[in-house]
Amino acid sequence: MAVNLQAPDPADLHPVRGVRLGVAQAGIRKADRTDLLLVALDPGASVAGVFTRNRFCAAPVLVAKEHLGAGKPVRALVVNTGVANAGTGEPGIARARETCRDAARLLGCDAAQVLPFSTGVIMEPLPADKIAAALPRCVAGLAESRWSEAATAIMTTDTVPKAASRRVRAGDASIVVTGIAKGAGMIHPDMATMLAFVALDAPIAPALLRRMVERVAAASFNRITVDGDTSTNDAFIVVATGKAAQAIESERDPRFASVYEGLEDVSKRLAQAIVRDGEGATKFITVRVEQGADAAECDRVAYAIAHSPLVKTAFFASDPNLGRILAAIGYAGIADLDVSRVDLYLDDVLVAKGGARAAGYCEEDGQRVMKKPEIAVRVALGRGTAGTELWTCDLSHGYVSINADYRS
Amino acid sequence: MAVNLQAPDPADLHPVRGVRLGVAQAGIRKADRTDLLLVALDPGASVAGVFTRNRFCAAPVLVAKEHLGAGKPVRALVVNTGVANAGTGEPGIARARETCRDAARLLGCDAAQVLPFSTGVIMEPLPADKIAAALPRCVAGLAESRWSEAATAIMTTDTVPKAASRRVRAGDASIVVTGIAKGAGMIHPDMATMLAFVALDAPIAPALLRRMVERVAAASFNRITVDGDTSTNDAFIVVATGKAAQAIESERDPRFASVYEGLEDVSKRLAQAIVRDGEGATKFITVRVEQGADAAECDRVAYAIAHSPLVKTAFFASDPNLGRILAAIGYAGIADLDVSRVDLYLDDVLVAKGGARAAGYCEEDGQRVMKKPEIAVRVALGRGTAGTELWTCDLSHGYVSINADYRS
Repeated sequence: MAVNLQAPDPADLHPVRGVRLGVAQAGIRKADRTDLLLVALDPGASVAGVFTRNRFCAAPVLVAKEHLGAGKPVRALVVNTGVANAGTGEPGIARARETCRDAARLLGCDAAQVLPFSTGVIMEPLPADKIAAALPRCVAGLAESRWSEAATAIMTTDTVPKAASRRVRAGDASIVVTGIAKGAGMIHPDMATMLAFVALDAPIAPALLRRMVERVAAASFNRITVDGDTSTNDAFIVVATGKAAQAIESERDPRFASVYEGLEDVSKRLAQAIVRDGEGATKFITVRVEQGADAAECDRVAYAIAHSPLVKTAFFASDPNLGRILAAIGYAGIADLDVSRVDLYLDDVLVAKGGARAAGYCEEDGQRVMKKPEIAVRVALGRGTAGTELWTCDLSHGYVSINADYRS
Repeated sequence: MAVNLQAPDPADLHPVRGVRLGVAQAGIRKADRTDLLLVALDPGASVAGVFTRNRFCAAPVLVAKEHLGAGKPVRALVVNTGVANAGTGEPGIARARETCRDAARLLGCDAAQVLPFSTGVIMEPLPADKIAAALPRCVAGLAESRWSEAATAIMTTDTVPKAASRRVRAGDASIVVTGIAKGAGMIHPDMATMLAFVALDAPIAPALLRRMVERVAAASFNRITVDGDTSTNDAFIVVATGKAAQAIESERDPRFASVYEGLEDVSKRLAQAIVRDGEGATKFITVRVEQGADAAECDRVAYAIAHSPLVKTAFFASDPNLGRILAAIGYAGIADLDVSRVDLYLDDVLVAKGGARAAGYCEEDGQRVMKKPEIAVRVALGRGTAGTELWTCDLSHGYVSINADYRS
């Protein structure tokens, strides 16, 4: 029931030279399910990432950050679904390290050159032995063409595998950017709740890649919310294999803009795919807040709207009960908000003008927009020139069913 | 489907001398529904209140605050359901004033001695003419015995009328405290989202009554949350008619403690009744956070748990997927939280010890507690001696149905 989201055609996912992918059924939580992904990187790749800020961050997040920080060239990512390896204490960290060692042994590198990732149920022990047993099958199948299978391997409550790919021109070279993501619930902006891996074959200096990842995350995965829950396991990793062109060292490089744009575009499409496949989603909602005094207050208003269960159920019902949006604007925490300057639009329909129902607004117009699968809410605060945009979905019976039944 | 909540027996609701109540069917939004309440106060009553902090606060909230602030003795409250008169601009304020004038004319007082209250759909015009037409019927029926009918008259999506009453001893006198409340959705702690009116027949000096209302609200209506939405129309009003004893001027009066305790007890029972009747509620959840560095951080953790849709759906499903509670603790915003000192209890079952699953915990114990209709979540942060407690409910299909269908 995802909103305007199809599984990617494997033919549209361009391989990234220097990135090989292999999957296996490890039986981590359920049998007959592909639940393990190994991504092997050729020597010379730059890797950077951003991670959840949840204090209960998972053991693999701690280990991945440690390994990234140690500065050795990363040679592999190992991703399992089924068990999040969060809330598991010291034994959880030991098991994440064990998985790194197992993968390193098979690939002939150091354990510190492997980044582990897990997603699934919290507070259950990771069956590292099952992962160890399945890793050789991942290695045996490693191929540059397996992006589609990789996208499927990392799904949990996702109903559609998520992948995006494009080519960008960078000077004389053609650069490929391809990525996959998973996530449908426990999605919140403070490092969007998900796993996402994007690779490009441009060679990008590590320090520059780190800046790019922060900026891309702020424009993509940190602009989505499904239920306001920040996961323990979020990670967004970008790999630059360096196979395609001469090194890009800084933002002043004339090729930077197009490469960055390609990376941001793929990341935005993956981020929006997560919302389109949000648990129980039947509507894709863009929330734009304009005329704010600064971006932070625009964000507060946008998230108040996007998190309001009352607003989200009204979208589910296609009910233009739009006073609920005014209420959310009102409690967003702008202490000196002058509501008599606030305008509200639903797509191009002016709903409220100067803080009250617009003279020309009629319910039929609101109803017509509310019935669409994709809707833009636009709020003009009348306070300044700052603006923001984020993406969310509605709150339906499907969300309750999925999360009431998740473990059964 | 409210959780352990029955309609009050009218015989248990003690009249408060000096408070007369009258109701009518005004046809504000639906026909054949008692939707108007007039509360008439004898001269000499003290009145104090706290109101929503939503910037889009409703017209009646603005007018009621203005009238309370003007300092004239309050002689009446007028409460309508069906239409909230919020997001209605200047015309909304004019209509709230019109209702005050109409009630004042019938009761022989000034319009500034009448406080208006509205609850219902936002951004629709208040039919003040229908209220004017129905007010004489409220006046004709005024009686001290009508608390039960009054509780029914102010219901919106409530499934059970909410009232509480008790007698307390204050020196030689017997004091009556009786109150009513409404609210089931759009419930959030920053002035709990509801209307509540409590009267007592002790004579309490106005300045003292104002302090008491703030303190009582902090201990009752500001400790509940259903969906995290702060309403535009919240108000909690306390009336002290002064019929029963000598004036109480300050907290040092030996009778103060028992009168305060009676007021807080009635208010807590009304606040908890709102959660028990929370939209779609099937579980009543108490969240206690202990061993915090200060009360504010305990509140942040408690509200993160109480607002998490994932935690709330797990309670609905009776599924001990308790890692979701750890995740909520982790994103509650305590930057230096040491998760290895965090313990989690479900009723008396130790679920997590030192940030990880407790050695002695087995899923059957968690399952046993999760099946109960009333559950206490207890978190020990291991940081200090501060603590907090609040009350919430689960998130069920019922919530989605009620809010998707509210206006239809």
